Amino acid sequence: MYWLLSRFSMSATGARRSVIRELLKLTQQPGIISFAGGLPSPETFPVREIAELSREVILKEGAWALQYGPTEGVPGLKEEIIRHIAKDGMKAGPENILITSASQQGLDLVSRVFLNRRNRIIVGRPTYLGALSAFRSTGALFSEVELDEEGMRTDRVREQVEALRLEGNPPKFVYVVPDFQNPSGVTLSLKRRKELLSIAREHRFPIIEDSPYRALRYVGSPVPSLYELDGGEGFVISLHTFSKILFPGLRLGWILAGPAMIDRFVMAKQAMDLCSPGLTQAIALEYCRRGLLDGHIQDNIVLYREKRKVMLEALERFMPDHPEIRWTRPEGGLFLWLCLPESVDVEIMFHDAIAAKVAYVVGTCFYAYDGGHHAMRLNFSYPSESDIVEGIRRLADVIRNYL
Amino acid sequence: MYWLLSRFSMSATGARRSVIRELLKLTQQPGIISFAGGLPSPETFPVREIAELSREVILKEGAWALQYGPTEGVPGLKEEIIRHIAKDGMKAGPENILITSASQQGLDLVSRVFLNRRNRIIVGRPTYLGALSAFRSTGALFSEVELDEEGMRTDRVREQVEALRLEGNPPKFVYVVPDFQNPSGVTLSLKRRKELLSIAREHRFPIIEDSPYRALRYVGSPVPSLYELDGGEGFVISLHTFSKILFPGLRLGWILAGPAMIDRFVMAKQAMDLCSPGLTQAIALEYCRRGLLDGHIQDNIVLYREKRKVMLEALERFMPDHPEIRWTRPEGGLFLWLCLPESVDVEIMFHDAIAAKVAYVVGTCFYAYDGGHHAMRLNFSYPSESDIVEGIRRLADVIRNYL
Repeated sequence: MYWLLSRFSMSATGARRSVIRELLKLTQQPGIISFAGGLPSPETFPVREIAELSREVILKEGAWALQYGPTEGVPGLKEEIIRHIAKDGMKAGPENILITSASQQGLDLVSRVFLNRRNRIIVGRPTYLGALSAFRSTGALFSEVELDEEGMRTDRVREQVEALRLEGNPPKFVYVVPDFQNPSGVTLSLKRRKELLSIAREHRFPIIEDSPYRALRYVGSPVPSLYELDGGEGFVISLHTFSKILFPGLRLGWILAGPAMIDRFVMAKQAMDLCSPGLTQAIALEYCRRGLLDGHIQDNIVLYREKRKVMLEALERFMPDHPEIRWTRPEGGLFLWLCLPESVDVEIMFHDAIAAKVAYVVGTCFYAYDGGHHAMRLNFSYPSESDIVEGIRRLADVIRNYL
Repeated sequence: MYWLLSRFSMSATGARRSVIRELLKLTQQPGIISFAGGLPSPETFPVREIAELSREVILKEGAWALQYGPTEGVPGLKEEIIRHIAKDGMKAGPENILITSASQQGLDLVSRVFLNRRNRIIVGRPTYLGALSAFRSTGALFSEVELDEEGMRTDRVREQVEALRLEGNPPKFVYVVPDFQNPSGVTLSLKRRKELLSIAREHRFPIIEDSPYRALRYVGSPVPSLYELDGGEGFVISLHTFSKILFPGLRLGWILAGPAMIDRFVMAKQAMDLCSPGLTQAIALEYCRRGLLDGHIQDNIVLYREKRKVMLEALERFMPDHPEIRWTRPEGGLFLWLCLPESVDVEIMFHDAIAAKVAYVVGTCFYAYDGGHHAMRLNFSYPSESDIVEGIRRLADVIRNYL
C-alpha cells in the first residue's frame, strides 16, 4: 500500500488525526470521570417526544422527507429558524439561510469558499479545534490573537490586519466564537464586537461568527450577536447548530449570511453532499412547529446552570491554593478553561490523570501552532453533578503532585 | 457586496451552479412529464415500516442515536453492510468501511484526499455530473475516455495513462461507474474490468468505483464488482449508497477500501462534518437488522424492470425512424441515453420540449469540457408507466420537428 501514499493531495498529507479524538479513546475506559468531551448530557434528549413525532411526521410527510430535497434546505425548517432567531434579534429571510449538516459543515463550507493555500486567517489564541482542522485542510496559515476576559483582543486584531496588509497577504477573514468560547468559556464584550465589525468594514473582510452555544446562557445578560450588529451589511457570516439546543444526532445546523454569500455556499454544498437529509429536517421542523424548542432550551439551561455552579464550587473547594492556578467563570456554554503553573505539562500529566480515573482535554489542542501546555478544557455539561465533584477532587490531587 | 467577490477561493470562483439543478427548476412546472430527475419513485418508499421502526428505535436506542457518534460510522450499521455486500461477493471487515453522507460525500472525500490543482484524472465521456462537480472544485483537470457498448474503452485508458506519464503528470485515479452508468446506462464488461485493474496495478493508481445502482439489475447476469476482482489488494475504492436501495432522504452511503485508505478518509471526514447522523444510521441499521432490505430491493427491481420495459417499448413505437436516432438498453439502474442526429442541439430543443410538457437532461451536462450536444439522459424510475408512454410520445413529436 506504500504506493498509495505518494498519491495523496497536499491537504491529506498535511492532515493530523484529531488529537481530541485519540485522547477521547483513552477516556472511554470504565470508571473514568471525563471532562474531556463536548457532549450534551443524554438526560436532556427528548427521546419520547422525538420517537412519537418521528412516527407521525414520517407517516404524514414521508413523500418528501424520504426523497432528495433542495440543497438550500427544507423551506418549512427555514421558516422555523427565522422565527426562532428573530427572538434573539437576528433578522433573516429564507435567502439568508442555508441548512447545513451541523456547524462543522458550516466551517468546511467557509474553508472551501474562501481559502486557498497560504491564505492568512485570524483566529483566537486559543480557539476551537474543529475550526482549526477545517481551515488547515486548505493549507491556510493562522495568525493568532490572544484572548482576555473580554474575549479576543481587538487592538491586536487591528495590528495583525495592518501587518498582514503590509506583507501583501491581508486576512481572508477573522474567525471568532463570541459567546462562551470553546475552549475558554469567555464572551466577547459588546465594545469588542463593535470594534471587530469596524475593523472588518474598514478593511473589507468578513467575520466568521461561530455560535453553537449562544442560546445556553446561565448568568448575566445577552450581548447582541455580531450578525445583529452588522445589520444586514454582509460583513458577518454566522454559523449555528441544533446540536447543543436539541440533540447532536440530528447533525443539522444553519448558516446566516447575505444572499450572494448563501448562493456561493449552496454551490459548494451541492458538490459536497447534494443536500442534508430530508428525514432529519422533517423531524427538526416538526419539533419546532409544535413549539417544543423554547421549553427544551429552557430545561437545558436549568440543568447546565446547576452543573456549572457545581463545577465552579468544586474548583474553589479542591484546587490547590496557588497564584498561577486559575480558571474562567463562563456565563454559558459547556466549557471552562483551567490554567496551571508553568511547571505543569498537561500532556505529561494526562496519563497520571487517566490513572487517577479523570480526564480533560489538553490545552495544546486549541492552538494553531504551539501553546496551551499549561492549560486544559473542562466540560461540565456531560458528567453528573456528583461526578463533577468527585472528578474535580481527583484532578486537584493529580495537579498537587506536579506543584 | 462586490468587495466579497475578490475574497473567494479559486475553488469557489471556478464553481458552476449545477446545470442539472437549474434545468430541474424548469421541469417542475405543472403538467410536465419529467425524465430529467434521478429520483427513485416515492411509491417505493417503505413509509409505514420506517415510521413504526423509527419510533421504536428512538425509544430503544435514543441515548446513542441522538448523541454524537464515531466518525467511522455506527459499528452495528457497518456489520449490516458487511453482511449485505457479502451476498454480492464483496469481502470487508469494519476496518474497510466508512459510513458517509451518501455517495456524493464519498466523491467529495476522494477529491480531498487525492486531488491538488492541475492534477489529472481519467473519467468517462460521458460521466456522472456530480462527480465532475466534486472533482472540479479542487482545480483538477479531466482526461476523457469514450464509452462503447462494453463501457469505458480500456485501450484508450491505457493510451491516456501512458501519454500523461510522458507529460510528467500521471493520473491520480480513474473514475468509473461500472454498473448501469449514469448517464449512459452502459455496463463495463468483465474483460474491461480486468483490463482496467491490470492497468491500475501496472501504473499504481487507484480506481474509483462509483456503484449506486449495482443492486438494481433487471435483466442479464451480474458482473463481479471491481472491488471483488481486486481481491483486497487496495487498488479499488468503492462508493455505495442507500439512496437507490432504501431511500435518498437518509443521505447515507459507505466507502469500501483498504484500512490505510479508510483511515485517511476518516481524518478528512472529521474536518467536514465530525460524523454522519446517529439518528439516520439507527433507522437504517434497524431496517437492515429486521431483514427488510433484500425484500425491498426485490420490490424495486420488479417495479423498475417494468418501467424500463415500458420506456424501451415507447421509444420503439414513437421515435422517428432515422439511422442516427438510437438509444441504449440498460440492464439496470435508472437511466438510458438517447442519441440524436447532429442537426439537433438538445439545449435549444429543451425549451420546445418544456413547451410540449416533457423534460430531459441535456447531454452536455455529462461532459467535462464539451460534448453531448446531440444526446440526452432519460430517467425511467420516477414517472408512472402511463406518463412514460405519453412523455416519450411528446418527446418524439418535438424531435421530429428538428429532423
